[in-house]
Formats: sequence, structure tokens, C-alpha cells
Amino acid sequence: MTEPTGRRRGGGREARRAVRAAGVATLPYLTRSIPPYEILGDEGLTIIEQNAETILEEVGIEIVEFPDALGIFESAGARVDGTRVRFPRGMCRDLAATAPARFTQHARNPARTVEIGDPHVVLAPAYGSPFVRNLDDGRRYATIEDFRNFAKLTYMSRQLHHAGGTLCEPVDLPVNKRHFEMVYSHIKYSDKAFMGSVTSPERAQDTVDIAKIVFGEDFVAENTVVLSLCNANSPLSWDRAMLGSAKVYAENNQATLLTPFILAGAMAPVTVAGTAAQTLAEALAGIAFTQIVRPGAPVVLGSFASSMSMQSGAPTFGTPEPALVLWTMAALARRLGVPFRSGGNLTAAKTPDAQAAYESAATFFPTLTAGVNFVLHTAGWLEGGLVMGYEKFILDADMAGMAGALLDGVDLSENGQAMEPLLTTGPGQHYLGTEHTLANFETAFWRAETSDSNSFEQWEADGSKEAVNRAHERWRQMLSDYEAPPLDERTDHELRSWIQQRKDSFPDSDVS
Amino acid sequence: MTEPTGRRRGGGREARRAVRAAGVATLPYLTRSIPPYEILGDEGLTIIEQNAETILEEVGIEIVEFPDALGIFESAGARVDGTRVRFPRGMCRDLAATAPARFTQHARNPARTVEIGDPHVVLAPAYGSPFVRNLDDGRRYATIEDFRNFAKLTYMSRQLHHAGGTLCEPVDLPVNKRHFEMVYSHIKYSDKAFMGSVTSPERAQDTVDIAKIVFGEDFVAENTVVLSLCNANSPLSWDRAMLGSAKVYAENNQATLLTPFILAGAMAPVTVAGTAAQTLAEALAGIAFTQIVRPGAPVVLGSFASSMSMQSGAPTFGTPEPALVLWTMAALARRLGVPFRSGGNLTAAKTPDAQAAYESAATFFPTLTAGVNFVLHTAGWLEGGLVMGYEKFILDADMAGMAGALLDGVDLSENGQAMEPLLTTGPGQHYLGTEHTLANFETAFWRAETSDSNSFEQWEADGSKEAVNRAHERWRQMLSDYEAPPLDERTDHELRSWIQQRKDSFPDSDVS
Repeated sequence: MTEPTGRRRGGGREARRAVRAAGVATLPYLTRSIPPYEILGDEGLTIIEQNAETILEEVGIEIVEFPDALGIFESAGARVDGTRVRFPRGMCRDLAATAPARFTQHARNPARTVEIGDPHVVLAPAYGSPFVRNLDDGRRYATIEDFRNFAKLTYMSRQLHHAGGTLCEPVDLPVNKRHFEMVYSHIKYSDKAFMGSVTSPERAQDTVDIAKIVFGEDFVAENTVVLSLCNANSPLSWDRAMLGSAKVYAENNQATLLTPFILAGAMAPVTVAGTAAQTLAEALAGIAFTQIVRPGAPVVLGSFASSMSMQSGAPTFGTPEPALVLWTMAALARRLGVPFRSGGNLTAAKTPDAQAAYESAATFFPTLTAGVNFVLHTAGWLEGGLVMGYEKFILDADMAGMAGALLDGVDLSENGQAMEPLLTTGPGQHYLGTEHTLANFETAFWRAETSDSNSFEQWEADGSKEAVNRAHERWRQMLSDYEAPPLDERTDHELRSWIQQRKDSFPDSDVS
Repeated sequence: MTEPTGRRRGGGREARRAVRAAGVATLPYLTRSIPPYEILGDEGLTIIEQNAETILEEVGIEIVEFPDALGIFESAGARVDGTRVRFPRGMCRDLAATAPARFTQHARNPARTVEIGDPHVVLAPAYGSPFVRNLDDGRRYATIEDFRNFAKLTYMSRQLHHAGGTLCEPVDLPVNKRHFEMVYSHIKYSDKAFMGSVTSPERAQDTVDIAKIVFGEDFVAENTVVLSLCNANSPLSWDRAMLGSAKVYAENNQATLLTPFILAGAMAPVTVAGTAAQTLAEALAGIAFTQIVRPGAPVVLGSFASSMSMQSGAPTFGTPEPALVLWTMAALARRLGVPFRSGGNLTAAKTPDAQAAYESAATFFPTLTAGVNFVLHTAGWLEGGLVMGYEKFILDADMAGMAGALLDGVDLSENGQAMEPLLTTGPGQHYLGTEHTLANFETAFWRAETSDSNSFEQWEADGSKEAVNRAHERWRQMLSDYEAPPLDERTDHELRSWIQQRKDSFPDSDVS
């Protein structure tokens, strides 16, 4: 029968069934078949868009220590006054029109290449924590060994489609040389698409140069192989590190996530509509910048907004206001016609306890229903991002596995309607043994691998383990089972030589 | 300014602000201002509706040990064959047309009276567990003392708008007399609207008679003061206990939740569309029955669907398929024009750990976005409903507190747009001290009371407590602080005398 409903078909369910049948471990990315959840109508979204234009026109954006950017903006028609750039209404939006609605980020293993943009969803691990936590060590500073561990775990997690970027900060390495080992680890220990350095334009260029060794110079010139996270300094300012990195990537046709990172109440007004207008203004300026540098350069509109405790001023997560920002920003990105990044499994909890899980899910569900295209922080995030948790990583990734079935929506095929069993199985009869159940049972229901749904008695006999204990066993087992994906020996050697040469060319420094 | 968006205005945010300002602890119920999340279009929903009609017409509903119901259905035009009732297409839907789209359930304290139906949301605690669990005792059978404790905790929980029903099974009391003490406890220890007995028509009548003592016979004749849960015996059968109770309540103009309780794969096909069609068929038959008994009797269409572990056959919760059923059934109830009940904080976990919280939130978010009007199992549910957890109750209720702010949606008032602070606070400046922030700070962000968002150092100094420990302290403190709401002494005496008389009129029995 033909597909009768309004749901968009992207082949998600069928593709996943095919993959399962073929015994392949990972689908490269998800396809959303359910519509996005729209909480505001056109009129409300237009108000926020107009407010963003007013902000860009009247207040403008401060450019910190990056005179080049002032000239670039001015060349495109912006008014520059000192380090302040003001934009005629509609200028940034017009410039954003050249940004692609969707782009391909190539992985070194072509089977892992991802599509970023509607109707697709790419899940990536958490990013940027200086600390790690696990049941063995408690909480401590992260090292390059931890980074490698999370690169391996991400590679092995079939729910994660992307290697991510700064999985944790390898604080045992000099600040100015960490990026070499982080980018190398993504290539060495994984074959998924990865993120590059944004802490300076020079390190962004190092990332591109490393990518050229892996993918070949010609390939990189014509394709996107790196996606990197450039955060605005909210409110309303962009600095050289981030915008300079964005410039390097755009010049090289590489992708950037341009993300205002906002603690509402401190870096933006305390309201949802105010935070959304500011986020849009900041992101628009960043997107416009990349499109002036290179029209058509792939960009993603990012939004990260947290709420704040009224008592302590600490950031809070999993609260309703950021969920409202998320749904609103996703709609605004759709109207702008660019891919959208937000959400994840965010929490302020210190350990992977009930608070951590409630808060994480309270961000992740809005993430899935909003229609986010690239989800950073899908797995591992604790303590407002200060800590990458080993057990939290396992639990988050496992729960994120439900995204595929959720985004598939309702199957209204003949098999999905199930009228044959409904009309032939009598009242009071069980469906367990019906032909339809047997034919569908294996793929009918998603199930978390770390959850225990057994009887109390069985659970007790199994040692009365809580989720964190099961997750602990799992990551240790995974690291013990890890096998590296094949990497051409010559390429590996070339990478190591090039990195060593670069490292030797300037002294170590812990000044960022 | 006028309200420019498509969101429905129910005064939720303003009402809550007024309540907060007045120092009142509880809002009687929530008002949803965001639109419901629709995952299927008209065409898809029509298919499921037509399939339900086909089931009712061709297979029909089995009526177990309740000949009266056969006559009642036949009198309205159904075809009865033995104990099987088949319905001409559209008959049940036509009958359901007399059911109100929304009704008032009065509480003995008028300030707690609730509205059940769009655009309102009423949150009630979990229902029906034979066991309880807490950090002091672990897991054990529930007693009437536990029931009273949960009645008190529910009364004190401002996030819960309804007293609920079988908070836990008081297994220390004889099966055939438990209902007296349960209903009495709701009246004695709380002043919120409550649920009645459904284990036999006689006990339903006892509930109505008790309500008459509390509210007055004339008041009960003209108003709804009891809401009770009648579950179908899926697949496709209704029995005397449930349908007989529904008959008593309908005759007395009291409300029923007519809920197919379905473990998909066992009691229905393994597919979402199949489970939805069956749920609709079963509920339609039940709703039609109440409307034949008394046109206009208040009813709620209920849906409870769980998925199943492929390995063990155990029910699983917080999975994507039940979420899809929930969103679908909510849309079908809206099209039918009756209030909808589903969802809650459901989990198969044994303790309130990360699994419990992830799974609970993965049901509660679909619940909120679907537009559910009455939410049973909002707080306390563990082990697939076998256990009522003290700490789980506290955590669930606390997290449910976010519902108000979420359902309010985006405030697009002048204050909500926040353009004044956006245009006057410069780039790089903080918003903490702005007039707008100070004016809004106290009500700007919802915050869970049991969550710890402090720094790691502060959290450590506070004893490194996890969520379950904080919840444990909280329920003990609440029970220690509990003060009963006023209850007229004469009414109380009359209740006790009437109950004693009824108890003495037949022997104790543990045969249900």
C-alpha cells in the first residue's frame, strides 16, 4: 500500500532493518520521519526574527582582537565603528542564504560519512570537560589516556554517529599542543567523522593540514571532512580564536557550528524570547561572516542555553525554559534554511544518579522532538560540562539508542496496522504466539542494553545492580574488547612525522 | 500588546504568578498554552479510527460475567451473540458524542477542585502497587500505614493536583474491606479530589455513598466528586468488576477513566498502529457503555501501553514505541472530543537510580507534549508498577513541577521579548544586575527542589549526597511536618460510623 500519512519518509526504519539484517553495527546517521514539534506560530517566530535584526542593527556585534573580521564585515556592507559592527536589517539573513541547508561530512571510513541537515540527525559525544569521573577513580583531571578511552568508546558506540571533538581536555599535555594529539586520536582510534581545533586560527589550520594527510589534499579542497565548534562570547561578541578559526575552516570549505553559549540571566536576558532573539543575532553574524569569507561554506546554527539557580547563580539543566529555547531556535533555524545544533544529555548532577538522568532526558527529549540535526553532548556530560563521566557516557549513549525508533514515527504499512492479527486473535487471547508477533518480535521494540527490566527476584539474583554499576562493567568490557579500525600504515607514519615536526617547531606552553 | 502567536492562552503563567504572590502552596491544576505535538496527520489518524471501527464491527467486545451489560449494549443497537457484542460502524463514536469534552471534579476543599479536559492538565500519583520501597526498609509489602503516608505526601506535594486512588495496596487489610480505609484516608488526610473503588460494583457504590456523606447527597447528585479507573481486560474484553463499577459511577454522574491497559505483544499486536487501534476500540466500547447508561456522564479515554523485552517477555518502560502510542492516542481522544489520560513517570527499574529516571522522563515528556489531561502515575512508580517508592515519589513529584513552565510556552509579552535590556546592555556586559533581570529573576526559571546544581566543592561539603539521599530526607521531613487539612468533626464521625456499620455487615475475606 502507499504511505498514507503526512510523515516524511527518509527510509529510517527500513534502513535500520536492513542494517540489522546485514549484521553491520552502526547506521551512519538517523533520519527523522516525524514532524518537528512547533511551539510557536509564524507570527511569534517573526517577532523574534525581527528582534534579532533590531539587535544587529542597533547594538551590533563586538569583534574582539580580530581586525581582519572588521574589514571582512565592512566589505559586505556592515557599518564598522571601532570594534563594533552593525548590520543593516536583513543583511546577515541575506548572506546566510548561500549556506547549504544540508551538507555531507566525510569520515575516513566512507560507511561512517554523515549528512548534516534536515531530515537527518547525527549524535555526537560530550565536549570540553577538564575532569573525568568513574567508579574506579572518582573525579579527577582528564588526561590524554582518558581522551583515547572516550575516542575508543565513541567508536564502539553504535548509537553515536560522530567522533565528536574535545571529548575531555587532556590537561597532562601542554595547552598549545593538545590539539595535535586530540585530532590524531580521533583518526587513530576511530573512523567516524570528527571535530577540529578552534582555540586559535593556527590550530584550525593544523587540523585542516592533518585532514589533508588523511583524506588527500584534493579531496579536502572539494569536500567537508572537519566540523568544528565556534562559540560566540555572549552577549554579542565574537573573538579572534573562534571567528578566526571559523575563517580558516570556511576558507577551506570545512564546516563550523556557530553557537552562542548562553547562561540566561548572566549572558542574556532571563526570558526565553529574549535569549532566542540574542542567540539568533549572534549566530546570524557568525554565519554571515563565514558566507562572506566563502559563499556556500557549510555552517550549522547552534544554540546552547541554560537556566540559572535563583539561589546560587549556578547554571541549571533539564529545566523547562532551555527546552522552550531549544524548540524555538530549531524552528528559527529551519526558517533560515541551515542545519541546527543543540541539546544533548545535559545535567548539573555530580554523579550519574537520578538527578543526572532526569535532567539529561529533559534536554534530550526536546532535542529529538525539535528536529535538531547535530547533537553535541549526547553522552558523558556531568556537572554542567565540567566532567566527562565514564558511566554517564555509557548510560547516555544507550538511552540515545531510542532516537531511531522514536524518529521513525508510526508505521502505517499493512504490517504496522496489524489488522490481520487484530481480526483473527480473539478477545482474551494472547498475541505472543501469533504469526504476526513472531514475524515482528525481534525488531518490534527498542530496548536499552544497560537497563534491567527483569523481575525483582531475578535482579536480586543478578546482584541487585543499579544502572551505574552495569554501566561501569560495560565500559570496562568495551575498552578491553576494543579493536582499532584499520589505518593505512603509511598514512599513520606520515601523520606522526608531520605532527612531530610541528610540535618541534615551537616551544610547549600552558598559556592558551 | 496583544498576544501575537498561535499559542492558546489559558492564563497558566499569570495564574501561577498570582498564586506565588499570594503565598498559596498549590495551583489546583495546569493549563496548557503550547500546542499538542501531533506526529500523525489526519489521514493516518483516520486509518486507525477506521481500523477500530472494523474491530468493533467484526470481532466485537467480549463481556465477562456481566449479563446486564449485554442487554444495555443491545438496547442501544449493538448485536449480541452469547457474551460477544458487535457494534455497527460508528455506533460507539456516535454514543460518545454525549460525553463532555471537559468536566469539573470537585474536591472537598473547593480551592482544590480540578478541571479535567483540554486545555488543562491534572497530575496524580501512582496507583496500585502491592509493594513499597524506601531507603529505611528496602522493599516490602505495603500496609494501610504506607497508604496514609502517601496520602499525606500527595496532599503536601504542590506539584500533584489530585489525591489519586490506590496509592498502594494495603495488604494488611482484608481484600473486601480495603476500599473503605483507602477512600476514608483520601478524605481524612487530604482535601484534594480523589479516586474510588472499582474492584466490584458494590464497592463503587460504597465509594459514592461515602462521597455523599462528605459532599451532601444533593451535591453529589448534580456534581462529579469521584473519578475512578476502569481497565479493560485486553484484548477486547470488559468484565463485571470494571464495567459494573463504571455503570454505578455513570448512574451517579461520577467520572470514570476507561483505560485499556496493554502490554503490546502479549495483549495486543507488537505494532504502534495496531495497539492504538485496539486501544481505541476497547475504550470506545467502554465510553459508549457509560453514555448509554447515562448520556453526558463524565468519562476520560485512557491509554496505557508498554513495550516488552525481546529476551524475557518482561514489560519495558520509557521506550519509544509507547511514546508513539501515547502521542497517537492523545490525538485520537481530541478527535473524539473527550478528555485523555495516559503517561506518568513509568519505569521497570527496582530502585530510583539513573535507569528509573531516564525511563520515567522518557514517558513524562511525551505525556506533557501530547496534551494528556489526566496523568496517573505521576509520582512513585517503580518496578513496572509493582512498587510504590517513597524516594521515587519525591523525585518524580519534584521533576513534575516543571510541567507548568513547560506548558506555558514562550512569553511574547513586552517583558518576555526583553528588547529594552537587549538594546541597552552592551556586548560583553552581564545581565545579572539589569533592572529587567532583577524584576524577573525570582520567577524566571523553574528549579527542582531535590536537585543539586551547586559546585562540586559545595556538593562535597554538603555530604556528597545523591538524589535518592536528598529525597529520603525530604519525605521523612514532610511526614514529620504534616498537618491534616481541617475536616468537620461531625462529618468525620458520620464517616467512621457508616464505614464501621458496613464493615460489620459482612465477614472479612481475602478472596477478591
